[in-house]
Amino acid sequence: MSKSFESYFAENREAHLTELNELLRIPSISALSEHKGDIQKSAEWLEEALKRAGMENVRLMPTKGNPVVYGEWLKAEGKPTVLIYGHYDVQPVDPLHLWETPPFEPTIRDEKLYARGASDDKGQTYMHIKALEALLQTTGTLPLNFKFCIEGEEEIGSPNLDVFVEEHKDLLTADVLVISDTTMLERGKPAICYGLRGLCALQIDVKGAKSDLHSGLFGGVVHNPIHALVQLLASMHDQDGVITIDGFYDRVQSITDEERAAFQELGQDEEKIRQELGVPELYGEKGYSMVERTWIRPTLEVNGIYGGFQGEGTKTVIPSEAHAKITCRLVPDQGPEEIQALIQAHVEKHAPVGVTVTIQLLDKGRPFVTPFDHPAIQAAARAYEKAYGTEPAYTRMGGSVPIVETFGRLLNLPVVLMGFGLPDENFHAPNEHFNLENFDKGLLALCHYWYELEGLQF
Amino acid sequence: MSKSFESYFAENREAHLTELNELLRIPSISALSEHKGDIQKSAEWLEEALKRAGMENVRLMPTKGNPVVYGEWLKAEGKPTVLIYGHYDVQPVDPLHLWETPPFEPTIRDEKLYARGASDDKGQTYMHIKALEALLQTTGTLPLNFKFCIEGEEEIGSPNLDVFVEEHKDLLTADVLVISDTTMLERGKPAICYGLRGLCALQIDVKGAKSDLHSGLFGGVVHNPIHALVQLLASMHDQDGVITIDGFYDRVQSITDEERAAFQELGQDEEKIRQELGVPELYGEKGYSMVERTWIRPTLEVNGIYGGFQGEGTKTVIPSEAHAKITCRLVPDQGPEEIQALIQAHVEKHAPVGVTVTIQLLDKGRPFVTPFDHPAIQAAARAYEKAYGTEPAYTRMGGSVPIVETFGRLLNLPVVLMGFGLPDENFHAPNEHFNLENFDKGLLALCHYWYELEGLQF
Repeated sequence: MSKSFESYFAENREAHLTELNELLRIPSISALSEHKGDIQKSAEWLEEALKRAGMENVRLMPTKGNPVVYGEWLKAEGKPTVLIYGHYDVQPVDPLHLWETPPFEPTIRDEKLYARGASDDKGQTYMHIKALEALLQTTGTLPLNFKFCIEGEEEIGSPNLDVFVEEHKDLLTADVLVISDTTMLERGKPAICYGLRGLCALQIDVKGAKSDLHSGLFGGVVHNPIHALVQLLASMHDQDGVITIDGFYDRVQSITDEERAAFQELGQDEEKIRQELGVPELYGEKGYSMVERTWIRPTLEVNGIYGGFQGEGTKTVIPSEAHAKITCRLVPDQGPEEIQALIQAHVEKHAPVGVTVTIQLLDKGRPFVTPFDHPAIQAAARAYEKAYGTEPAYTRMGGSVPIVETFGRLLNLPVVLMGFGLPDENFHAPNEHFNLENFDKGLLALCHYWYELEGLQF
Repeated sequence: MSKSFESYFAENREAHLTELNELLRIPSISALSEHKGDIQKSAEWLEEALKRAGMENVRLMPTKGNPVVYGEWLKAEGKPTVLIYGHYDVQPVDPLHLWETPPFEPTIRDEKLYARGASDDKGQTYMHIKALEALLQTTGTLPLNFKFCIEGEEEIGSPNLDVFVEEHKDLLTADVLVISDTTMLERGKPAICYGLRGLCALQIDVKGAKSDLHSGLFGGVVHNPIHALVQLLASMHDQDGVITIDGFYDRVQSITDEERAAFQELGQDEEKIRQELGVPELYGEKGYSMVERTWIRPTLEVNGIYGGFQGEGTKTVIPSEAHAKITCRLVPDQGPEEIQALIQAHVEKHAPVGVTVTIQLLDKGRPFVTPFDHPAIQAAARAYEKAYGTEPAYTRMGGSVPIVETFGRLLNLPVVLMGFGLPDENFHAPNEHFNLENFDKGLLALCHYWYELEGLQF
């Protein structure tokens, strides 16, 4: 019982990775209904893992959608309580042919673990479980009280988490929420993220003639829904990458010179990033640096477009329908409902002739910023320094974790985002992976963090 | 042997339809390589059908792609020779869920035969075989000499037919080419088509980052290939449906007042067509009637677009690639190579930043016009009048049958397009069908036509 957690992790590394691979093999894709059974399997797997780790009162808690895995350890009387959030669902894997090894057959290459969910977020959630298990195994106790809330719908926008948190406020009450679902600045440079963009995800459907038509016989007779759709989408940006939806930027907070300078000090190497991404040049809203464009400026991205023939060769058809999926990333003080209304108004203003256009909301989340001088955040900084030997950067992030804002608001607690992913680890893309260096150091950082938090008052 | 062909068709109607259904059940989709075996099966089925009909020297003739089915009957010494062209391949069937009955399970509803290929072109090709079989069965001979050339690559642009015709010029030599692959004006109004639009089919591929990226982390960093593609495509038409590719209309022949007046006399009911198509309004190049837009004006239609996520819900991705399939319909004197070059120049002029764009040619065909006072065409008009009790209209057609131009040029013969389809029979779309009224009357028209041609000199 007197072993250090450092040596415990070293001795059990193989076993831990083998165990994580079991979880990664379950294709728990929340966006696709045919994976409902895999969602359940993943949840049950985590239930068992929490029990094995020494958590108590472990159970699957139903929601209208996928279950939440709950577990707790509340024997540190008088000490703060940490709520740990993670998610066991993963993104779809298409296009499958671009994966070097299959997404649900975890493979280690070059000290990187390749699998869908390796980093986002099964790998990082698993680290939290193992960190507490290590402390219990080596010291017999924990310095704080802990609660786990691991959901299965993060990748589809957590449609049921608000209601779940509201209904179980008492159960989930805590002093600080810790989430590991963000990234470090780059290799060797940990980061504490204090701001996240919000989200407004929409689908645009354009409907033309009641059935597909021959493009020879009907080319020149009806409006092609693809033409109407591309005209609409093209009207949403100008040549400088600026969004041309009326009012889109009205509520965007301007950046202080201080914050702008701090971003520049991070010294992001745009040329290196360009090379890694394999593009002829970087691109985005004119007048802002790459970091500014991703952290403090909103975006409107078409995530998918489809209509008509997609097979080999040619098919002379005017399709009956065309579709696009859009997500806007929002920054304070943009609200997703307002952005949806502005886009709706834009579509009505540009209403194409001879087709009908409808818009549906698929997902939403508000942007979030937390003060980075909070003691729980400063304690995290000290823990990172112990594990990595370097101070963390304070960053914002382009992504959205809508539940961060939800938890902060409903439970009224500070949120600490300690992410161990790297920006180039292909979340949501083929060949997602997790650098094992950060699996190892991240486990240490978490253990250090719990001791750093032990004496604090919130 | 003294029975009329009219009573022969009446007595054998059930048997003929049953036999045609055998052919329609073979999913001979030339665009999809997995149907290679079905292509072969269709060709062999026609080989047997030609033999049964009494044709001689029947055989499958290889090409670099799918075989041509050849057969002949050359015992009418001193009489003209007719070359009959048809095709046994069919279009793809997606979107499959829109078919009321499966595309390869022929079903008769309301005196219409529903199946992929029912009209385009298995049904009409089959009619030619049965017309000659009927004359041989009822009279023991034929009034003319006949050759069949039935190909299996029409729906993918007949890539090997030019070479085939060139190599077998002597075998295929004839006095007139008859093709039944076009449509009547409307129900009860037969038409002889004297002009077809040409075709230039292209694929545009836009490539961005080397893999899909998270739209939160990289939204604002790179150019989204879908954005680049929709900007490019949107730049190809203006708000009035006019094509904005520099030089696109330069070679388009202007229409004579006489031709314009003749088109108006056809009395196409645009409101009726609008209702049938189920669109809020018709749409096309400003300043031209619907008939003009489809027959004598060129078009540029996007037949398919795809990139990124297409599943249920949302996926926050910036895709690595986006694609579009385009066909231009060409009118005299536009050439497909020149149009390809103009589009290439347009893309280079609008070259989007941060992505690479490539264009490939998928298919091409030159526009075609034949003089409608040719004796072979006038004979067809008399045959139509006998079968339908009404004079045919002289029409042009929006579609393309590139081989018409090929045959006309290589074999130096007049081409007569006697089509028995109707414009609303969903060629290339779900629920393709063939009105059996035109199966019945078409068989009579063909038999009358052969007797009308008997005494002519070419």
